Amino acid sequence: MEWWESRKSRYPVQKYMSGFDELSFAKIDNHRHERRGFPEAIFCEGKTAEQVAQIVEKMNEGERNILATRAGPETFEAVKKLVPEAEYHDFSRLIMVRKEEIEADPDRFILVMTAGTSDIPVAEEAAVTAELMGHCVERIFDVGVAGIHRLFAQQEKVTGANVLVVAAGMEGALASVVGGLVSKPVIAVPTSVGYGASFGGVAALLGMLNSCASGVSVVNIDNGFGAGRLAGMINSMR
Amino acid sequence: MEWWESRKSRYPVQKYMSGFDELSFAKIDNHRHERRGFPEAIFCEGKTAEQVAQIVEKMNEGERNILATRAGPETFEAVKKLVPEAEYHDFSRLIMVRKEEIEADPDRFILVMTAGTSDIPVAEEAAVTAELMGHCVERIFDVGVAGIHRLFAQQEKVTGANVLVVAAGMEGALASVVGGLVSKPVIAVPTSVGYGASFGGVAALLGMLNSCASGVSVVNIDNGFGAGRLAGMINSMR
Amino acid sequence: MEWWESRKSRYPVQKYMSGFDELSFAKIDNHRHERRGFPEAIFCEGKTAEQVAQIVEKMNEGERNILATRAGPETFEAVKKLVPEAEYHDFSRLIMVRKEEIEADPDRFILVMTAGTSDIPVAEEAAVTAELMGHCVERIFDVGVAGIHRLFAQQEKVTGANVLVVAAGMEGALASVVGGLVSKPVIAVPTSVGYGASFGGVAALLGMLNSCASGVSVVNIDNGFGAGRLAGMINSMR
Amino acid sequence: MEWWESRKSRYPVQKYMSGFDELSFAKIDNHRHERRGFPEAIFCEGKTAEQVAQIVEKMNEGERNILATRAGPETFEAVKKLVPEAEYHDFSRLIMVRKEEIEADPDRFILVMTAGTSDIPVAEEAAVTAELMGHCVERIFDVGVAGIHRLFAQQEKVTGANVLVVAAGMEGALASVVGGLVSKPVIAVPTSVGYGASFGGVAALLGMLNSCASGVSVVNIDNGFGAGRLAGMINSMR
Amino acid sequence: MEWWESRKSRYPVQKYMSGFDELSFAKIDNHRHERRGFPEAIFCEGKTAEQVAQIVEKMNEGERNILATRAGPETFEAVKKLVPEAEYHDFSRLIMVRKEEIEADPDRFILVMTAGTSDIPVAEEAAVTAELMGHCVERIFDVGVAGIHRLFAQQEKVTGANVLVVAAGMEGALASVVGGLVSKPVIAVPTSVGYGASFGGVAALLGMLNSCASGVSVVNIDNGFGAGRLAGMINSMR
Amino acid sequence: MEWWESRKSRYPVQKYMSGFDELSFAKIDNHRHERRGFPEAIFCEGKTAEQVAQIVEKMNEGERNILATRAGPETFEAVKKLVPEAEYHDFSRLIMVRKEEIEADPDRFILVMTAGTSDIPVAEEAAVTAELMGHCVERIFDVGVAGIHRLFAQQEKVTGANVLVVAAGMEGALASVVGGLVSKPVIAVPTSVGYGASFGGVAALLGMLNSCASGVSVVNIDNGFGAGRLAGMINSMR
Amino acid sequence: MEWWESRKSRYPVQKYMSGFDELSFAKIDNHRHERRGFPEAIFCEGKTAEQVAQIVEKMNEGERNILATRAGPETFEAVKKLVPEAEYHDFSRLIMVRKEEIEADPDRFILVMTAGTSDIPVAEEAAVTAELMGHCVERIFDVGVAGIHRLFAQQEKVTGANVLVVAAGMEGALASVVGGLVSKPVIAVPTSVGYGASFGGVAALLGMLNSCASGVSVVNIDNGFGAGRLAGMINSMR
Amino acid sequence: MEWWESRKSRYPVQKYMSGFDELSFAKIDNHRHERRGFPEAIFCEGKTAEQVAQIVEKMNEGERNILATRAGPETFEAVKKLVPEAEYHDFSRLIMVRKEEIEADPDRFILVMTAGTSDIPVAEEAAVTAELMGHCVERIFDVGVAGIHRLFAQQEKVTGANVLVVAAGMEGALASVVGGLVSKPVIAVPTSVGYGASFGGVAALLGMLNSCASGVSVVNIDNGFGAGRLAGMINSMR
Repeated sequence: MEWWESRKSRYPVQKYMSGFDELSFAKIDNHRHERRGFPEAIFCEGKTAEQVAQIVEKMNEGERNILATRAGPETFEAVKKLVPEAEYHDFSRLIMVRKEEIEADPDRFILVMTAGTSDIPVAEEAAVTAELMGHCVERIFDVGVAGIHRLFAQQEKVTGANVLVVAAGMEGALASVVGGLVSKPVIAVPTSVGYGASFGGVAALLGMLNSCASGVSVVNIDNGFGAGRLAGMINSMR
Repeated sequence: MEWWESRKSRYPVQKYMSGFDELSFAKIDNHRHERRGFPEAIFCEGKTAEQVAQIVEKMNEGERNILATRAGPETFEAVKKLVPEAEYHDFSRLIMVRKEEIEADPDRFILVMTAGTSDIPVAEEAAVTAELMGHCVERIFDVGVAGIHRLFAQQEKVTGANVLVVAAGMEGALASVVGGLVSKPVIAVPTSVGYGASFGGVAALLGMLNSCASGVSVVNIDNGFGAGRLAGMINSMR
Repeated sequence: MEWWESRKSRYPVQKYMSGFDELSFAKIDNHRHERRGFPEAIFCEGKTAEQVAQIVEKMNEGERNILATRAGPETFEAVKKLVPEAEYHDFSRLIMVRKEEIEADPDRFILVMTAGTSDIPVAEEAAVTAELMGHCVERIFDVGVAGIHRLFAQQEKVTGANVLVVAAGMEGALASVVGGLVSKPVIAVPTSVGYGASFGGVAALLGMLNSCASGVSVVNIDNGFGAGRLAGMINSMR
Repeated sequence: MEWWESRKSRYPVQKYMSGFDELSFAKIDNHRHERRGFPEAIFCEGKTAEQVAQIVEKMNEGERNILATRAGPETFEAVKKLVPEAEYHDFSRLIMVRKEEIEADPDRFILVMTAGTSDIPVAEEAAVTAELMGHCVERIFDVGVAGIHRLFAQQEKVTGANVLVVAAGMEGALASVVGGLVSKPVIAVPTSVGYGASFGGVAALLGMLNSCASGVSVVNIDNGFGAGRLAGMINSMR
Repeated sequence: MEWWESRKSRYPVQKYMSGFDELSFAKIDNHRHERRGFPEAIFCEGKTAEQVAQIVEKMNEGERNILATRAGPETFEAVKKLVPEAEYHDFSRLIMVRKEEIEADPDRFILVMTAGTSDIPVAEEAAVTAELMGHCVERIFDVGVAGIHRLFAQQEKVTGANVLVVAAGMEGALASVVGGLVSKPVIAVPTSVGYGASFGGVAALLGMLNSCASGVSVVNIDNGFGAGRLAGMINSMR
Repeated sequence: MEWWESRKSRYPVQKYMSGFDELSFAKIDNHRHERRGFPEAIFCEGKTAEQVAQIVEKMNEGERNILATRAGPETFEAVKKLVPEAEYHDFSRLIMVRKEEIEADPDRFILVMTAGTSDIPVAEEAAVTAELMGHCVERIFDVGVAGIHRLFAQQEKVTGANVLVVAAGMEGALASVVGGLVSKPVIAVPTSVGYGASFGGVAALLGMLNSCASGVSVVNIDNGFGAGRLAGMINSMR
Repeated sequence: MEWWESRKSRYPVQKYMSGFDELSFAKIDNHRHERRGFPEAIFCEGKTAEQVAQIVEKMNEGERNILATRAGPETFEAVKKLVPEAEYHDFSRLIMVRKEEIEADPDRFILVMTAGTSDIPVAEEAAVTAELMGHCVERIFDVGVAGIHRLFAQQEKVTGANVLVVAAGMEGALASVVGGLVSKPVIAVPTSVGYGASFGGVAALLGMLNSCASGVSVVNIDNGFGAGRLAGMINSMR
Repeated sequence: MEWWESRKSRYPVQKYMSGFDELSFAKIDNHRHERRGFPEAIFCEGKTAEQVAQIVEKMNEGERNILATRAGPETFEAVKKLVPEAEYHDFSRLIMVRKEEIEADPDRFILVMTAGTSDIPVAEEAAVTAELMGHCVERIFDVGVAGIHRLFAQQEKVTGANVLVVAAGMEGALASVVGGLVSKPVIAVPTSVGYGASFGGVAALLGMLNSCASGVSVVNIDNGFGAGRLAGMINSMR
């Protein structure tokens, strides 16, 4: 960091990253809750552990739940020092600070499904996000289309859901099959599970975009957060 | 067609395409309405004009609105012979048969937006689909981010909408900007408008999938029908 | 063609395409039948109508069925002049000369399926190829996964087949679903049916290659001939 | 894991991953053997070592051979603790539990070939899979087309095989050459062997999909398991 | 063209395209022959027929053979008006003006091969180019690897050649097989022959770049001219 | 258009495209001149000839030069009926309405270069755009790197330019060479000139993005307008 | 290195890498300053730490500022041993040797912006490069379009800048929005920030190339140096 | 390895990998020298260190030079134990065993060039390969087109070479420039040097394939061995 110090006195514009310039590297969007119904989540990739920790600490002055995604253990360590009540979900690499308890309505549940066991981390990112927003979430895991009877055994839950999130890698066919069974919105999350010609989730992504079932829309590969966020948003409509 | 005749008597399995085998080349999914809330739409590409016409005629025995997408003028000609009340929207290549009038609720409107004038055909496919499902649809066209004041002049409509459909080609940035302004679901439709490195809509598709605004999900390139269908489905939730 | 004449006398090597040099532009592989069990099929793309016609005429001196794929109507015209008994399947762009009647065994049937109506031309290419090889072929069309009950209504045929060919465009999910239902080989044929992010069949191809069901293998996009050929080869094993 | 504990009491739906909820993260498909002739293999990537171990232990209550693919050494350690009779094939990263001895018929052998030495791990995955299913397997390694006399020296074995699996990276040409020599099905497995424009196996994959020899079908890059599985399935037909 | 006239008097810089400004739209590289041993060939795509005709006429003032590639019939018409002795090879879309007769040495021949009949136009572009440079060219067509005995029947010619050009589409495997048989340079020309996953020649291109045989180098898809040019250049070395 | 009429009375929201709703399909950005220094250009692809004509007519009420890009002849016909003083540059598919004469400074000229003759239409789009903005433009065409002495013969012009636009297809190497010769900004325009592995301009685009010369930036494939616009913008700085 | 020693005496050509052959592995371009206005920057990737150190030492004999990009800590260690006054910017992996102080004009400032916090390292590479060239640089970070009010709060700075550099990953929409607000050149730098379908910066790159705002040009992914270099070059024009 | 032991006694076919089965995992192509003029090189990637060592030991029984490419240090360690006279070129990851001294002709030299310092390892692979074949090799490094005067300073060497190898990453433009200067074959080797949109060498590969200079052919990315091998083969022609 000495480099920063040295250049502060040399060039006209270097106030922006000194210690007293509060979070000059990030503009926390405090108005977003009013505007969007949910505080800004923190995307941790490309940020240092210290940057994330300072952002969480700053947000913690407010009264909303906080969520940081794609957080490694060392980031959690840095956060915990500044915000001891933070929790860590290592499986899905999520940091949470729960500050408000929202009453969930069990009759309007969101169903989160996966095609395989390996898709669960992404699915959990979606599920936890929706739960933090105050929604009731049901889970059905490992019901990929290669053994489609496993899916039909759960048909009641499937058709009872208000919104569905389907996380699948490889060929991602589960989204189409589920989309054909229900009359509710299906949010498809391609995952990077697979190898070879799965191309890190591209095969699943393309499969879902080309779904022959209408009512299916798609978010980015492995974007469990976005899917959970959107599912909660839709489930809040009345 | 003579070939079909000749082989009918030669091989054990060729009943499936004779004149009396009703629509053996297509399985009309009559139960879908109960299951999905909307009759199956007909995707015309790859079907002959005659096949489409026969499917529409068959569906016309029911009581639901009918929609055929990506229909060329010659297909409409074939349909009109069998179903004279069919209408054609040449701009968006849609054939419609309107059989039920559904009361739309103007307070819960769907907003369909485009970045440019060239995106309107896709946007209209979305808008008409939603209208056929009985929804009220508002339109704002040509408000791409290169002149973002045009968008803000419409801010009231934007924030008043219940669901939003954003059709954009080129870099597709409008979806992100709109997604950041509202707390309602945004359905992004990449269009194939553009040239060179737009790669037939891929640039817009990738831009929308990577949207930094949450609440945005994506359908296939130029899939106005899917977007309108999903918008209607979400707008029906209460 | 005058160009060819002029250069024949000028350069040392130009015998290869004169009128008396029989089919010097193609080496007909007469031994293939012994080696492979089926005469060479003619791939018409990139060949002139005259070249195809001459090849068919030459092959017609033998005693085997002849099949030319991807043949336009003008190619058929040229063939018919030289080989009047040739038949044309315009739907699938196939030219056939039937010279031997092979007894098919109805208890060992090949099942050819499609996800949609638009996939039928490719499926027919597969079915006709297998029939020409002397196999019994059953067909189930338009049973895509968006309405999966249509598939289950045919479960008896599906599980009774000895080999299955599944032609599907868009996301190609039908191959995985069928692969999970049977214990027989499934040959998946991605078709170029679709638009936008289907990329001319790539989405279906990737989906099928990543099928989570084992027992599924894949041939080239729209390669109905190859699928039918392989299905016949497998069905001949005992 | 403390995170899981804490949230169990907080949200309505979290039974699914407690210690007593048996394998709630995976749905073991016990009926698949009847349906498919072979128990479900375990794809280890994306699963924790503990998850794999618990699945193997559960399957071990049955009477079938068990196969886990793409298993690292630490996964094998975890499995061995719960199922001491498990074997590890580190070369191909396979875990096996052999529980039934199936009589192989040496006259109906499957031939597994590679273009190079580096393709052997994938080829072994195929060979071992087929052997576990009770088939006789012959191997010919390192007979790539750059020295095609090496292949012809083995022609007897090649033409004597009932089904062939060809694993090749780089340009993958061996599949086409072999496909032209035999009248039996050839299952082509592109491998990720190569560099630069091999793009992790894509060059071989495309080469095999475009094979000018019929009778060749393709599975995913490095999918030795799928190839062996399909080879066994075909070899069982009579 | 009136537009050009009007703007000539308006802007400071528009001399460059007036009638008297000889070939201002092209800089004919008269020194190239000394430098390169062969006059500049004309790539016709993207040039108007008139532009090509004027360039040929200008070059015709010199004493070298002239070659124009990818020329449509209307371009030839325009050329013929200005240079009546021009010849047209419609099969390969070449225009030639032969002005010098170069003695070819039959003992140092270039061998041009194709995998299929459809590759012949590209191969002919290579062969004619080399012949115009004064080389002796032998041709072997339609010897693709699916029937590799056809290739071995010509082994004498293959091993006797001084330089080899191999044109192949689909999987392009012929280049590797030939490369393994000879100790002379092999110039591989991928062709756009194929469909589906051949991606307009990309599959063949990748296959050839990844050839496991050394001594193989590659030129652009369908670039027969470049291959013939390079073959002649190498064959001239002593 | 009858469809539009019929639906106007049926749905609540359809005012937007009636005849009296002035240019409701496009929002002309009248403030852009103040904001950007140049009126909005019209991108004609995807717009009907009538839409373009109406937009030009509307803009013609102002006092600025008007430019419509990628305009086919039928579009020009429609424009000419409403705005007779419009000019057409068919070579580059540009429609212009010249309304203000801006004094150009010949000492600060923009240099527009091409690698080949086929790149001239794109280069002219750039040159004309800059000239319409009031800049002096010099042109050097057909100086591709295969004959690099052609470039050095013009070195004086090259190093005298204030801003440079380099249009090149194929490998696009000219941009790097020019970038290494000058200390002024170079705007590289990849063109779609080429075939095979040029992939419609992608090869040139990637080459230019990876230019080892600094001072080079890139616009979209064939985007002559954008390059000319930016060149003018930079040339105006002082 | 012993290998080098041994071969020096064996082959005719190996002088080039001996200790006394000064920097034979690199040709320092001393004339570039006169030609280009700035000394050659050192791209460290693929060079050993020792090579970089020797190049810096050699350049240090001159009087210009020196910049080495993409330098790891071990490279800096090697440089520091030979050139103790070198500074390291670990955040952006830059090594600098400041040798001349250039007076910056605060009225002509370059504005460097980022969409997110994770884009800052790339932005700093641009900013520091421009500052080393003697320009005044302002920074605005984390103003991505998902919260567009953050951008408008800085509108004065945005419209006051002489040249703008916009670094953004994910969908890269900020470049288009900024491009629409200003009449000065915008240099867009796609960053590799993102995941899944961002494809390491490709989504942002395509978005920026397709920007609907004119005045925007693009450099390579993560090429902060190139953007800063070009911004300085443009800002020097008068 | 215990796994191998256990299965040897269990399955009918497992002789192939026992200790006494000499090099059963590789078929050394002893006849290749007669056929090809050079012994088979060993491609080390994907082979274990022990496999490589055994292959080298076996080859060492012959009298030819031996070359192993892409060899890591641990592979060299294994080789050295069995073949102590082996040399290692760590810079280019080559293992050599020099067994015959071939007289090189300095008047027929091969010129190996690089665009940058980072391309040297690949270039050395080419140079060393050609030297091992008995050719005289000259080197010119770091003469990329951004400072093209560095290239012209070496013009005598460039035009005096008999064959040229050009290794370049990034945009790979050097191959085109050199190709335009000489009348001898140019073998272009794209390297993976670069970042962002260089896509691991794809940009350079495409640039070279699209070279507007004829006489240029291309090998795989980073394939220095193949380039050197081909250069030697061409240089041997007389």
